Amino acid sequence: MSIVAVGSVAFDTIATPSGRAENVLGGSATYFSLAASYFTDVRLVAVVGDDFTAEHENVLHKRGIDTRGIEHARGKTFRWGGSYSDNLNEAKTTFTHLNVFEAFRPQIPKEYLDSEFLFLANIQPTLQADVRRKMRGVRLTGCDTMNYWINRTPKELAETLKLVDVLLINDAEAKMLVGETNLPRAARKVLAMGPQALVIKHGEYGATIFFGEGAFGIGRHPFRAPALPIEEVKDPTGAGDSFAGGFMGYLVAQKEVNREVLKRALFYGGVMASFAVERFGTERLQSLTREEIDGRFQIFRELTHFE
Amino acid sequence: MSIVAVGSVAFDTIATPSGRAENVLGGSATYFSLAASYFTDVRLVAVVGDDFTAEHENVLHKRGIDTRGIEHARGKTFRWGGSYSDNLNEAKTTFTHLNVFEAFRPQIPKEYLDSEFLFLANIQPTLQADVRRKMRGVRLTGCDTMNYWINRTPKELAETLKLVDVLLINDAEAKMLVGETNLPRAARKVLAMGPQALVIKHGEYGATIFFGEGAFGIGRHPFRAPALPIEEVKDPTGAGDSFAGGFMGYLVAQKEVNREVLKRALFYGGVMASFAVERFGTERLQSLTREEIDGRFQIFRELTHFE
Repeated sequence: MSIVAVGSVAFDTIATPSGRAENVLGGSATYFSLAASYFTDVRLVAVVGDDFTAEHENVLHKRGIDTRGIEHARGKTFRWGGSYSDNLNEAKTTFTHLNVFEAFRPQIPKEYLDSEFLFLANIQPTLQADVRRKMRGVRLTGCDTMNYWINRTPKELAETLKLVDVLLINDAEAKMLVGETNLPRAARKVLAMGPQALVIKHGEYGATIFFGEGAFGIGRHPFRAPALPIEEVKDPTGAGDSFAGGFMGYLVAQKEVNREVLKRALFYGGVMASFAVERFGTERLQSLTREEIDGRFQIFRELTHFE
Repeated sequence: MSIVAVGSVAFDTIATPSGRAENVLGGSATYFSLAASYFTDVRLVAVVGDDFTAEHENVLHKRGIDTRGIEHARGKTFRWGGSYSDNLNEAKTTFTHLNVFEAFRPQIPKEYLDSEFLFLANIQPTLQADVRRKMRGVRLTGCDTMNYWINRTPKELAETLKLVDVLLINDAEAKMLVGETNLPRAARKVLAMGPQALVIKHGEYGATIFFGEGAFGIGRHPFRAPALPIEEVKDPTGAGDSFAGGFMGYLVAQKEVNREVLKRALFYGGVMASFAVERFGTERLQSLTREEIDGRFQIFRELTHFE
């Protein structure tokens, strides 16, 4: 089994209360792919510039990630700068240089076309829809988006959501997408736009999955997974993409995608996000073991399950 | 088994996006006592004025609450007015008339002195400490406080916390109490002030209990309970006190207070809060059944437990 991930590869310059990192490998597709690589085969589609070296690519190869879908364009790789104040909940963007990412038109290598799972990281909704249509054999598509597209391209985004099985966004994005202040009401309206399941990420409070009626088997209720209470978050960048990587990666590796599997996947999403924030950039996601991941899964279980 | 609850009885005037209610029976001790009354015997200590009628007292008697500790003073009962905007997370106080509550000096009837559990709702910390000292046979004391006391009487509050076993406060209060921005770090510092366990309420995201080292048996981790995703919150007033009532009430009814029991108590706290907000004031808490409560407990379990 394998999953195709489409999104950004970037070099990030990050300042947090714990320190600073310059031009470290990041981007939504990078975080996603590294996190998912502990569960399944990952095939990456992205664009990079001349400054993306063999050493950078080797970070992905070491995790077994297929990089044939990385387009090498002339110019510089996407660069993003962000800083976090004490509460760490929101990044303040200090600069965005799209560079080669500005003209990104995802090309799917024909070797990728037999993948049954697809993740559309946060890129322009029309590009997301194009990729989904090209990947004809896909059984399940996960998707992320952000306030920028919700505000600027609502019609295009609505079209994309019709093609998506699981949408992963945060509280503010869910409320903004349907103009609602109440979360479960917002969830119901988002599900009416197309997705069969909606994962709403609550940052340090975990995440909730809401199911469309009758989707993924029988069940009445949403399901909530915790986040790990962490005393020192070094760098929250990429936590959401790492969550998506753990969530989707776990799904791909299961025989069947049903509600019980989606619940556990939500826990694995939280697990991967909790690792990602322990160090700057993608560092922690590069050197995990499956034993560490399953050990932390047990901690998440103890956090919420009584005997 | 029984619990003594000390706090306010009030008449509230509340405006929310769902409607308005005038002079409805409220107050921290009222919400607490009603919620706890479904689990154990509750003995109330509070002060009311001439406007508190036999009909009001009957609301408490119907739930078997011992009202011998209610002092009837000359003047009006405490009155509070609050309004909520769309997000419902924070009340805007429109008026506070302390009335007879201003001179409240809790008197414990001697018939109450054999209670082994005590809950100190949000009142002046020195009064809380006085009550705790008078209740010599108490095995476990729960306590609430608020930003007003954290800012105005930090020394007195610190003295009170040395006498408390379980403190129940919200995120902002925990962070303010110890001057911390990170929640688990704040929790560690609060536990160092005295309590053996700290319950931090996250509103719509549930609650987390942090344990002092070695307190309540063996265990490494905090524990997190969900809140119920509710499409229509009619009136959030008293949710925190109802949470405390469910939490403490469940504890009192158990043979032993250990970590497993505290985890389940956290769920019952959420359950009682979820009922409280379904109608205005204490209405919903007046007419529940234990079957409804246990049914909702199962929903909370399904919200967080996988097979």
